[in-house]
Amino acid sequence: MAIQQVVDSECNEILNKPNTVMSKPLNVTQKLIKDHLVEGEMTPGEEIGIKIDQTLTQDATGTLVMLELEAMELEDAKTELSCQYVDHNLLQTDNKNPDDHRFLKSAAEKFGMWFSRPGNGVSHPIETERFAIPGKTLAGSDSHTPASGCMGMLAIGAGGLDVAFAIAGQPLFMKMPKVLGVELKGNLPDWVSAKDVVLEMLRRYNVDGASGYVIEYFGEGLKNLSTMDRHVIANMGTEMGATSTVFPADGEVRRFMTSQGRGDEFVELVADEGAEYDKYEELILDDVEPLIALPSSPGNVVPVREVEGKPIYQAYVGSSANPGYRDFWMASEIVKGRNVDENVSWDINPTSRQIIENMVKNNVMFNLVQSGARIHQAGCNGCIGMGQAPASGQNSLRTVPRNFPDRSGTKEDSVFLVSPETAAASALTGKITDPRDLEELYNLKYPRFEELDDPIVNTEMLKAPVPKEERGEIKKGPNISTMPDFDGLSDFEVPVLLKMDDDISTDEILRAGAEVLPFRSNIPEISKFTLDVVDENFHDRALEAKEEHGGHVVVAGENYAQGSSREHAAIAPRYLGQRAVIAKSYARIGWQNLVNFGIPPFEFSNEEDYIDIDQGDILKTENIRASIESGNTAKLINVTKGKEYEVKHSLSERQREAVLDGGVINTFKKKKAS
Amino acid sequence: MAIQQVVDSECNEILNKPNTVMSKPLNVTQKLIKDHLVEGEMTPGEEIGIKIDQTLTQDATGTLVMLELEAMELEDAKTELSCQYVDHNLLQTDNKNPDDHRFLKSAAEKFGMWFSRPGNGVSHPIETERFAIPGKTLAGSDSHTPASGCMGMLAIGAGGLDVAFAIAGQPLFMKMPKVLGVELKGNLPDWVSAKDVVLEMLRRYNVDGASGYVIEYFGEGLKNLSTMDRHVIANMGTEMGATSTVFPADGEVRRFMTSQGRGDEFVELVADEGAEYDKYEELILDDVEPLIALPSSPGNVVPVREVEGKPIYQAYVGSSANPGYRDFWMASEIVKGRNVDENVSWDINPTSRQIIENMVKNNVMFNLVQSGARIHQAGCNGCIGMGQAPASGQNSLRTVPRNFPDRSGTKEDSVFLVSPETAAASALTGKITDPRDLEELYNLKYPRFEELDDPIVNTEMLKAPVPKEERGEIKKGPNISTMPDFDGLSDFEVPVLLKMDDDISTDEILRAGAEVLPFRSNIPEISKFTLDVVDENFHDRALEAKEEHGGHVVVAGENYAQGSSREHAAIAPRYLGQRAVIAKSYARIGWQNLVNFGIPPFEFSNEEDYIDIDQGDILKTENIRASIESGNTAKLINVTKGKEYEVKHSLSERQREAVLDGGVINTFKKKKAS
Repeated sequence: MAIQQVVDSECNEILNKPNTVMSKPLNVTQKLIKDHLVEGEMTPGEEIGIKIDQTLTQDATGTLVMLELEAMELEDAKTELSCQYVDHNLLQTDNKNPDDHRFLKSAAEKFGMWFSRPGNGVSHPIETERFAIPGKTLAGSDSHTPASGCMGMLAIGAGGLDVAFAIAGQPLFMKMPKVLGVELKGNLPDWVSAKDVVLEMLRRYNVDGASGYVIEYFGEGLKNLSTMDRHVIANMGTEMGATSTVFPADGEVRRFMTSQGRGDEFVELVADEGAEYDKYEELILDDVEPLIALPSSPGNVVPVREVEGKPIYQAYVGSSANPGYRDFWMASEIVKGRNVDENVSWDINPTSRQIIENMVKNNVMFNLVQSGARIHQAGCNGCIGMGQAPASGQNSLRTVPRNFPDRSGTKEDSVFLVSPETAAASALTGKITDPRDLEELYNLKYPRFEELDDPIVNTEMLKAPVPKEERGEIKKGPNISTMPDFDGLSDFEVPVLLKMDDDISTDEILRAGAEVLPFRSNIPEISKFTLDVVDENFHDRALEAKEEHGGHVVVAGENYAQGSSREHAAIAPRYLGQRAVIAKSYARIGWQNLVNFGIPPFEFSNEEDYIDIDQGDILKTENIRASIESGNTAKLINVTKGKEYEVKHSLSERQREAVLDGGVINTFKKKKAS
Repeated sequence: MAIQQVVDSECNEILNKPNTVMSKPLNVTQKLIKDHLVEGEMTPGEEIGIKIDQTLTQDATGTLVMLELEAMELEDAKTELSCQYVDHNLLQTDNKNPDDHRFLKSAAEKFGMWFSRPGNGVSHPIETERFAIPGKTLAGSDSHTPASGCMGMLAIGAGGLDVAFAIAGQPLFMKMPKVLGVELKGNLPDWVSAKDVVLEMLRRYNVDGASGYVIEYFGEGLKNLSTMDRHVIANMGTEMGATSTVFPADGEVRRFMTSQGRGDEFVELVADEGAEYDKYEELILDDVEPLIALPSSPGNVVPVREVEGKPIYQAYVGSSANPGYRDFWMASEIVKGRNVDENVSWDINPTSRQIIENMVKNNVMFNLVQSGARIHQAGCNGCIGMGQAPASGQNSLRTVPRNFPDRSGTKEDSVFLVSPETAAASALTGKITDPRDLEELYNLKYPRFEELDDPIVNTEMLKAPVPKEERGEIKKGPNISTMPDFDGLSDFEVPVLLKMDDDISTDEILRAGAEVLPFRSNIPEISKFTLDVVDENFHDRALEAKEEHGGHVVVAGENYAQGSSREHAAIAPRYLGQRAVIAKSYARIGWQNLVNFGIPPFEFSNEEDYIDIDQGDILKTENIRASIESGNTAKLINVTKGKEYEVKHSLSERQREAVLDGGVINTFKKKKAS
C-alpha cells in the first residue's frame, strides 16, 4: 500500500473550522496551543499554562515522578491518558533495575496509569503507535517526547516534577514559543531518508538554532514522508533546541492510525489557509544527500562523501530516532544474503516487541541475523549508554539522535549519526560508505519500501489502568525510598557550610554516572554524594549541622546550578537540611528546582557582601516568612561577623507560596485538602 | 527425522578395535585416556599427562591466557584446533569489554587460532556443533567444557595457564580419574526432558558426589536422547564435581554431525563389550519426573510438585545447560498463542546465531516474542550475572546450570534450576508449575519434537586461523597490559609484610566483583586490590618494601589460598614483589598457582615458629636456590629476632624447576630457546 495524501472532509472537526475569534488564520502549533491554553496570553516569550491531555514517563525519570505523586497523595491520574514505560534501564546486573521495574508497575497501577512492561520497547514509537491522537497535548519526562508531534500533537519534554503535576491535573507552564515553518518540497532521492532530512535541518540550525521555537513542517513534500518518517524528524527537533516539532494530521496519519487499528481516533488537523509562521524555511527534498554528524555533536553535519573510507568498529540501527519497521527493513534489504565486515559489531536494537514481531514475520530479522547482527532486547539500550559501548578510539556509526561525548559509555568515543542506509552500507564494507555506492559495489538496486498491508499489532505488554477496587500497594525494593517530607519556611540561625565560586553546575552539586544514578529512587542514599566533587565531607558536615543548628546554607558566585535539569540537585541538599542558597546569580532550571523543593534562592543586593562572608560564619534571619510574603528582599544577619546584609529574590506569586510551604508538593497537598 | 540409533560398522576405526594390549575390555573414558596418555600410568589417583587435541577459551578467562601466550612468545597454536570465543562479557557499558573483544580477535589471529565473534554465541554448543570430534581431547578454560563429552570426546575444564600450555603443545596434567558408569534404561515420559535427567543425577550425587570421576553414560536408554540432550547432561556433570562426562559416539552422534554438515568427521567410539566401571549406577528414564533445584545449590533437587504454586518473577530459557534448538522450540510450543503472566519477566537467551536463525525460520522466535518474551543477544548473559538479574527476594526459574548465591547478580537471590518445559509452564501461570499440568490447564497436548530435516548452518561469524603472512599485531586497549616479566629465584632479606590467620581465601588475596574483574587483563591495575580485604594499605606497603628491600614475604596459618582457582591471586602478589609465602598449610589449587608463578610456598617444619614471627620482622635466606635444587627444606633467618627457622616444601622435580626459573612461563621459554 503506497502512501497517499487522503483529504477527507468528513473528518474535519472543531479544530479545523475557520478561525472566527482571532483575526488571522492559525498554523497547527497555534491551534494546538489555543485549544489548550488555561493561563497567560499567546504572545511569544510570555509564560503560558496549557492543559495536558496525555503524559509519558520512562523508568530513568519515572521513579522520581512516582515518588512525587506518592508524596502528593495522588489517587488517580487526572489526564486522559498517562503511561509509564520501562525502556531505559533494562540491563539487570543487580536488584536495582528489576526492583525499579516492579515499583513502577505497582505505582502505575496505584495511580490508574497504563504500564508498558520491560521488553515492550521504547516509549516514543509506542506512544505514537498506540496512544497519540491529533489535536492532543502530551507532556513527557524525556527530552525526545516531541517525536509524537508526527501525529499532529503538541508533545513536549519536561522535568519530572512538571510531568508529575500534569498527571495531577495541573497545567504545564512554559514560554509561548515562536513557530518556525519549514516548507517541504519535492521528493527524496533514492538512498536518502528522513534521517538525512533532519540532519540537513541540523546542518542549518545547529544545536540551538531552534531554541524558543516549535518547528512546524508543511508543504507538498510531506506526501512522501510516512508517519514514522515524520517521527524521525520530530524526534530530533530536540537536538536543535526546539520546544517541540509539529506535523499536520493529514491523510497519511489517518492511514497510519488505521494500520494500527485506531482509524476511528483520527482527527484531521492542518494549518488554516494563509497561516503564517514567525520564521520560514524552505527544504527541497530532492537536494538532500546522505549526511552524517561527526563526533561529538549532532550539529557537526557534513555529507557522508566528505568522510567516506574511515574504518569503523560498529554499525548500529535502532533507537527512537530511527524506530520504524521501515528502517530495519531497509537495513535488512541492504545486507540480505551478505556478511558484514569481520571487524564490525553489527548491533540491531529493535524498538518494540510489535516491531520485532513484524521483523520476524517478514524475514527482516532473518536477513539481519544471517548477515552477522547482534540482536538486542527492545529498548533504548545503547542510545543512552546502556550497552553496546564502542571500543576505545574506534568509530561507531549509529542511527541514534545524539553523539555527545561519552554518551555511548566509552570515554573519548567517536560516534557518528547516520541513516539506516548509511549504517548498513558501512557495516558491509567496514568503512564509512555513502549508500549510493551500493549500486556499484554490490550491484544492489535501491530497495523501495512499501508499507505492510496488515502489520501485526500486539498490545499484550501494555497494561491498561487497573480498576480502583483492584489496586494494590506500591512495591518497593530495598533501594527505593519515599520522598522526604519537608517543613514550611521558617527562620534559621545556621552555618555557611560551603562557600563556592562561579559556575557551580548540577554535576558538582549532584553528579551523574554509574556510581550515583542507581540511587535515583533513594534520596537518603543519593544525598551522600551531594557536593562531594567540591568537598568530599559535605554530606557528613551537613548532617552534623542539621543536628547542631537545624541545617545550613551555602554561598555561591555567578550562575549557580547550571547544567543538567536533574531535580536531585535540589532535593538532596534539602534533605540534608539546606535552608537557603545565597548566590550572585542562578541558572534558570537550577533556580526553579530550588524553588520547587522549598529552598529560597537569594541573590546579594550588594555583590561585595559575597566577599565578606566566610565559610563557617553563622547566618541568621528574622521574620523571613513576612519578608517573602510581602516583598522582594530579606535581611541576613552574620552573627559571627556582627554584620547585616540585604538579599533579594525574584519569585512570582505562585513561587512565593511554594517557598513558604516548603515546596510545590506541599502547596499542592494544601490546596487539595482545602 | 526421528532419532535412531544407527550402528554402522564401516565407521569403526582403530579406537574401537578389540583391545589387544591390555588384558581387559575398556570403557569409552579409558579408551580416550589411553589414546592420549603421554605421562604417568592409568592408575586412579595417580598424576597423568594427556595430549590435548583441541582447546576452548572464552573471553572472561581468555584475556589472561592470551597474555600468557604472549609472554611465552608462542608463534603458533600447537593443537589441532584452538578457538577463542567471546560469550561472557557482552554487556558493553564502557570501553573495557569491547576493547577485550578486539584484543582477543587480534591475539587469536596472531597465534593461529579460530575466533568466534561477539554475537556468535556460547562456546560449548558452538564447539559441539562445529568442532567436536569423537575420540579427541578438549581442554577449556571454562568449567562447563565437559559439555562436548556428548560427542564421545574427553572434554575437560582447566585453569587458564593449563590451557595456555595445552595451546603451546604441552600435556594437560591431572589425576587419573575413576569412571562412574551410568546405565540409562527405558524412555523419558512426556513433559520430562534431559534437564530432569541430570537433575535426577544431582539429586543422587549432590554437588561433590562425582568428584574424582568421569561420568560415562551408556545403555539402551541412550537411543532416545539426542546429541544436544546429551550436551545438557554432560554440561551439568560439572555440578557434581566430575572431572568430565562422556557419552559414546554412536549413530545419533553421526546423525547430528551429518545435520551440521560434518558427517565425514564422524568416528564411532563405544565401550568394548564387557567394559567395566569403577562404580555403577542405573537410571530408569521412565521413572524420572519434572525436577527442580531449590535455591541456592544445584544439589537441592526436589520434584516440581513439592514447590508448585510459589509466585515467580522470572522464567528464563537458555545458557549452555539448555542450549539446543529443541529447548527453545519446546518453550515456544508451550506459550504459542498465549501470553505469559503479567508479573513474569520472560527472558529468552538464545545460545547462538545459528540457533537464532533456525528459531526465526521456524516460527519459534515469533511465538516466543508474541507471548511476551524479552529476547537477548546470543551469549552467556544472565547465566553468569551479565544481565537479567531478578528483583530482590523474587523467585526466578532458570534453565541455567548453577544457582549459587548471588550468581544472578542480585544479593540474596532466589534462583531455581528447571527444564525449559517447567520454565515455560510457570511463565504462563505466573507460579511454579509442573508442566504435566498444562494438559489440563490449557488443554495442551505434549508437543513432540522432531529434529529439523535441514537445519541452517551458518559459520560466518567463526573466523578461521589467518595464514602467517597475514597476521597483524595484537591490539590492546588502554586497560590491557602485558604479563610482567618475573626474575628467577634468588636470596632475599625482606620484611614480613602481613601475618595472617588460618583459611585465608583467594577472595581475600584478590577479590572478585564488579569493581575488580574489569581489570582482569591489567596486572598493574588489578594488583592494587591485592589483600585489601585484610589490609587496605597492603598494595602501597608492598611497593614501598619492593623499593626499599626488593620485595616482601607473607606468613599465614592453615589452608592458605583456599577457594576460587583464580590465577590473579598469585600473579598480583608476585607483581608486587612477593618473594615467598610461609604458611602452616595450603589449599591445592592456590599452592599450585604460587608455584606456577614462581613464588616458593614454604611450610613450617615446626609449626610453633609461626607464633614466633611478627609482622615487620626481616626474614633472610642463604643459598635458597641450592636448598630447593637439592632438598626439601630451606633455612630462614629472622634478622630482627636473631633466630633461625627450618621451612620445607613438597615440590616435584618439574615444580622445583619452575620455582627456580621464576615460574613455568620462564621454564617454557628457556626450553623453547634451547
